[in-house]
Amino acid sequence: MTLQQTISTSTEDQMANAIRALAMDAVQAANSGHPGAPMGMADVATVLFNRFMKLDPKDPGWADRDRFVMSAGHGSMLVYAINHLLGYDDMPMDQLRRFRQLGSRTAGHPEYGHAKGIETTTGPLGQGISTAVGMALAERMMNARFGDDLVDHYTYVIAGDGCLMEGISHEAIDLAGHLGLSRLIVLWDDNGITIDGGTDLSTSTNQLARFAAAGWHVASVDGHDKTAVAAALETARAEASPSLIACKTIIGFGAPNKQGSHDVHGAPLGEAEIAAARETLGWTHAPFEIPPEVYDGWRAVAARGGDARSAWARRLADSPDAWTFRAAHAPVDDASLDAAITAYKHRLSSDAPKVATRKASEMALEIVNGTLPNTVGGSADLTGSNNTKTRGQAPVKAGDYAGSYIHYGIREHGMAAAMNGIALHGGLKPYGGTFLAFADYCRPAMRLSSLMGLPVVYVMTHDSIGLGEDGPTHQPVETIASLRAMPNHLVFRPCDAVETAEAWQIAMTQTARPSTLALSRQGLPTVRTRHTEANLTARGAYVLRDVARRDVTLIATGSEVEIALAASEALAAEGIAVAVVSAPCFELFAEATPEQRAAVLGDAPRIGIEAAIRQGWELMLRPEDGFIGMTGFGASAPAPELYRHFGITANAVAALARQLV
Amino acid sequence: MTLQQTISTSTEDQMANAIRALAMDAVQAANSGHPGAPMGMADVATVLFNRFMKLDPKDPGWADRDRFVMSAGHGSMLVYAINHLLGYDDMPMDQLRRFRQLGSRTAGHPEYGHAKGIETTTGPLGQGISTAVGMALAERMMNARFGDDLVDHYTYVIAGDGCLMEGISHEAIDLAGHLGLSRLIVLWDDNGITIDGGTDLSTSTNQLARFAAAGWHVASVDGHDKTAVAAALETARAEASPSLIACKTIIGFGAPNKQGSHDVHGAPLGEAEIAAARETLGWTHAPFEIPPEVYDGWRAVAARGGDARSAWARRLADSPDAWTFRAAHAPVDDASLDAAITAYKHRLSSDAPKVATRKASEMALEIVNGTLPNTVGGSADLTGSNNTKTRGQAPVKAGDYAGSYIHYGIREHGMAAAMNGIALHGGLKPYGGTFLAFADYCRPAMRLSSLMGLPVVYVMTHDSIGLGEDGPTHQPVETIASLRAMPNHLVFRPCDAVETAEAWQIAMTQTARPSTLALSRQGLPTVRTRHTEANLTARGAYVLRDVARRDVTLIATGSEVEIALAASEALAAEGIAVAVVSAPCFELFAEATPEQRAAVLGDAPRIGIEAAIRQGWELMLRPEDGFIGMTGFGASAPAPELYRHFGITANAVAALARQLV
Repeated sequence: MTLQQTISTSTEDQMANAIRALAMDAVQAANSGHPGAPMGMADVATVLFNRFMKLDPKDPGWADRDRFVMSAGHGSMLVYAINHLLGYDDMPMDQLRRFRQLGSRTAGHPEYGHAKGIETTTGPLGQGISTAVGMALAERMMNARFGDDLVDHYTYVIAGDGCLMEGISHEAIDLAGHLGLSRLIVLWDDNGITIDGGTDLSTSTNQLARFAAAGWHVASVDGHDKTAVAAALETARAEASPSLIACKTIIGFGAPNKQGSHDVHGAPLGEAEIAAARETLGWTHAPFEIPPEVYDGWRAVAARGGDARSAWARRLADSPDAWTFRAAHAPVDDASLDAAITAYKHRLSSDAPKVATRKASEMALEIVNGTLPNTVGGSADLTGSNNTKTRGQAPVKAGDYAGSYIHYGIREHGMAAAMNGIALHGGLKPYGGTFLAFADYCRPAMRLSSLMGLPVVYVMTHDSIGLGEDGPTHQPVETIASLRAMPNHLVFRPCDAVETAEAWQIAMTQTARPSTLALSRQGLPTVRTRHTEANLTARGAYVLRDVARRDVTLIATGSEVEIALAASEALAAEGIAVAVVSAPCFELFAEATPEQRAAVLGDAPRIGIEAAIRQGWELMLRPEDGFIGMTGFGASAPAPELYRHFGITANAVAALARQLV
Repeated sequence: MTLQQTISTSTEDQMANAIRALAMDAVQAANSGHPGAPMGMADVATVLFNRFMKLDPKDPGWADRDRFVMSAGHGSMLVYAINHLLGYDDMPMDQLRRFRQLGSRTAGHPEYGHAKGIETTTGPLGQGISTAVGMALAERMMNARFGDDLVDHYTYVIAGDGCLMEGISHEAIDLAGHLGLSRLIVLWDDNGITIDGGTDLSTSTNQLARFAAAGWHVASVDGHDKTAVAAALETARAEASPSLIACKTIIGFGAPNKQGSHDVHGAPLGEAEIAAARETLGWTHAPFEIPPEVYDGWRAVAARGGDARSAWARRLADSPDAWTFRAAHAPVDDASLDAAITAYKHRLSSDAPKVATRKASEMALEIVNGTLPNTVGGSADLTGSNNTKTRGQAPVKAGDYAGSYIHYGIREHGMAAAMNGIALHGGLKPYGGTFLAFADYCRPAMRLSSLMGLPVVYVMTHDSIGLGEDGPTHQPVETIASLRAMPNHLVFRPCDAVETAEAWQIAMTQTARPSTLALSRQGLPTVRTRHTEANLTARGAYVLRDVARRDVTLIATGSEVEIALAASEALAAEGIAVAVVSAPCFELFAEATPEQRAAVLGDAPRIGIEAAIRQGWELMLRPEDGFIGMTGFGASAPAPELYRHFGITANAVAALARQLV
């Protein structure tokens, strides 16, 4: 089929050409961006939206809308063009003219929260398709809870070659296939081009066979044949498994001299080629000018969605589940959670259990999951080690999505991305576990949690050399610092069961940032034996053991608070007055006022104690202050021996304190 | 087939049972560890070593040995047991008795460098199989250079379910299939068990179909049928593609009451079960006691390998390539590189080009690749952006491994692991590129570079908000800090073409640690216009603009050195005496003496300038010092606007300096 043969003047063709024109014109205006993917996938996207998508630009947060994820995020102009054409009120043409400019909603890659109708931030390849798995899973889970009347939508993804080459895509498609996420449909922009050149430079995988091996329905179509695309989508929607539709496309379709080459991927076409493309496409309109009949076509999609939403709203109003459904989408009931956690803390103060904080986390989760109806737990195959599964949590399975626990498999990265998707979908509050050292595997998706401001909770156990014999590959020494470095991310390292409960309370009531809980493998005594109504962890750091005048201040986190307390007692016996500060969350402490921080830290010499590197402790320590921790990788041995070997002991702290005093 | 039917008294059976007995006894003695995998895969491993492996315990570094990678690193006792039985002189029985104890060579997971015969550090799942791809690739590349007489060996991997579920495995198998790495043979411990329970809890992938889709030869055998395993290996060795052999095994094989269950995965069997296993296996010997005939069997493997090595050594001695072959495996010729780089620096100082440091990196690489014959470049599909390919570098292709450039595809993590494998293999010096923000994707493998002390070079371009329009997903703000946090890893952020050349020189002459070069997208002037023979970058930080007495010291890295210099000139015009320090490598500066550091930093108020977060700058700054940088994520806009928007300008520096003076 030649280019000319595929171009007609039907409305749908012009709807697609509008995407192409806006993409090439906006990239040209910005002198930066990626015209190739939007132009190549314009036909597929038009068919998808024109014939299938259920959405209402007037209510972009409508719970039962179809989700659209542009996993090939560099093709952001496809999203912006469509959202403009559909009539989202925050996407006037002026935004498209200001593509990639400071303060515009039309960032280089789609940024969640910058504009309506952007379901997730994409750009780092593979994240979109993996986040979409979480969305599609959340849809089935909400459907299991509320039925077809209230929850009955699809998650569509446009993915590029890069998304399918990234490792995370394997974790995502394996999980989606296993869980039978039939409402997930991936449209692969099968254009045979990557930045370096043809895909044959670097891959030989038969993607259809690969997806089929993971239990997916697969199909391949000419991505410029709208009838074929529509038929494939129709079939995919009816399948009992997730679907991959390979859409054979020509990258930069319509640019007569450059299409089909990697030259069209990530650079402006240039004025001459744009003029030639206009001619080829039969698009006679000026830049950023859309004829009324094209707007009419796209606005009909919006109108159809608006009708669907109205009907849905009536069903919700009539539903006996209306209150529960709305509650699931509302912020957490702070008061109920606070009451439950406070009562639990009261018991803890008197019981004073000696438990690992990973166990304390399970105990706190029993309260959290008992109070909040819509938490979703999980672990990357370390359920018994992360202690993430509470009583009564049933696993989610293919065809049975009523449970609230997900066996994510040995897929830390996929788990993190899926949790982003669950959080983005709405209605459910995800948390999931692995070992803290393997936060490195999750990191690109954790960064997106932070960038998007999603209240995902990462339960990261075995948080130091205290895990012992598994050795340096499993021992985080720089991991806490690397997470504290990440903007908009709370890192908790609680010292006992009380702080662990407080950390969970804070994490579950966040609305705009993720949390990581760094939890010990080894048992730790309860040091907060005096009950407080107040959530002291919320202060970030606070004085745990006070003295009238301070000779020295010991500041510790997590499992090292016990060491600080022991050192303080030894020093006290020598007449040295020692205050002990517990510092479970540096980020929250950084938000305190300078006066509050000064009151906690005091003027006396300070010693920081954390079984990790010092980087990041400048928040707490001055250059002349001391630090007891790690300077390099750990080792394999029983935990007590490691603490002695690396000099993280009460004796070492006391000796350093004597020097500093 | 029942358990009893599979057990005979043949020597090979007893050789396998010796692995089982040592594994269960060592785990029991340590009261910690993983008996399940070594017991399950003992038969497969015995067949592999007894009938195929080519190695010589007397010369563990023999270049033409077969490589064995225990990707399922928790099964480390399989490695230690075999290495003891083979007669490695650093693996006496006492080491096995001290499994997982402080200072022993028998760490919880196999640690490269701790003992002979450990080819790579494993434990973080998926790393072993992906590192092995690099080894197998290096073998073919060395073969292309030196022929079958000198390079003709296999890379064997034992991988577990976890390795195959991890995303990185997708990148690895796709790359291996594409490059036709026929000497790579993966033995999958197909036992159907993960930590959480059966694999059916979390995966439904048909692994054979999946690997076949990536171009692999696949087979499935009973992993306890030694004849079948041997036949499958024989076939795989003759195939023209990499091979996956699914070995159906019973985890913990031989422990009659626990085998086949996840209970046997990661905990000691207990004395009673061990006794029962001894009976079941017909193993009558005491713990840590091996009968002479079993030692004889294993030592025969070593003797066969010794003969092969002797023959190889004769071939090498007779080879016209002997000198070149030995040179490829020797440390870099420092003097030649130094002469070449120094001459190049001299030209740069007078030419004073204004180029992005990514371009300067390409220019330096022309010198490096022209001087060192065995560098191997590559990029994760960003060749033209990372500037990693120099003149005359031909791509490596399936069947043609003579080239020295690898199109790694959109597989940052797989690239990093493959580079580890290339470095471990020996003979070649790998470097590879991606965007700095995507260091997060590489991070688990970068951590292993650091932990193993491998001189891999990561070329990370587009290193700040200076990349501009691509926006916050692509803009590293915390990435530099997160890499500086990693022990044993040099992070360079050169400010101009001269420092870039110096950084390359240092990186290429490392022998025991990796380097990351953080390079700008935007053009930067040459500030080192006065030629120095000395490599100033090796000092970590040095005074670039000196003054007789200092009112203030500006300390900057990379693209912000230009800003510091501009500010210093503005301030000088006002009579404020400003020293400017360029700090291209914090790690090297930390290694300087306190006196050297004090001389560079001075006593005057200091301002740090880096378009990234402050964490990590405590090496340079006191709490009262100033910092001009980022506090959160970036934005999408042209770079100059972003610098103004985030206040990283000479004016802002000058204003802060006036405050501090």
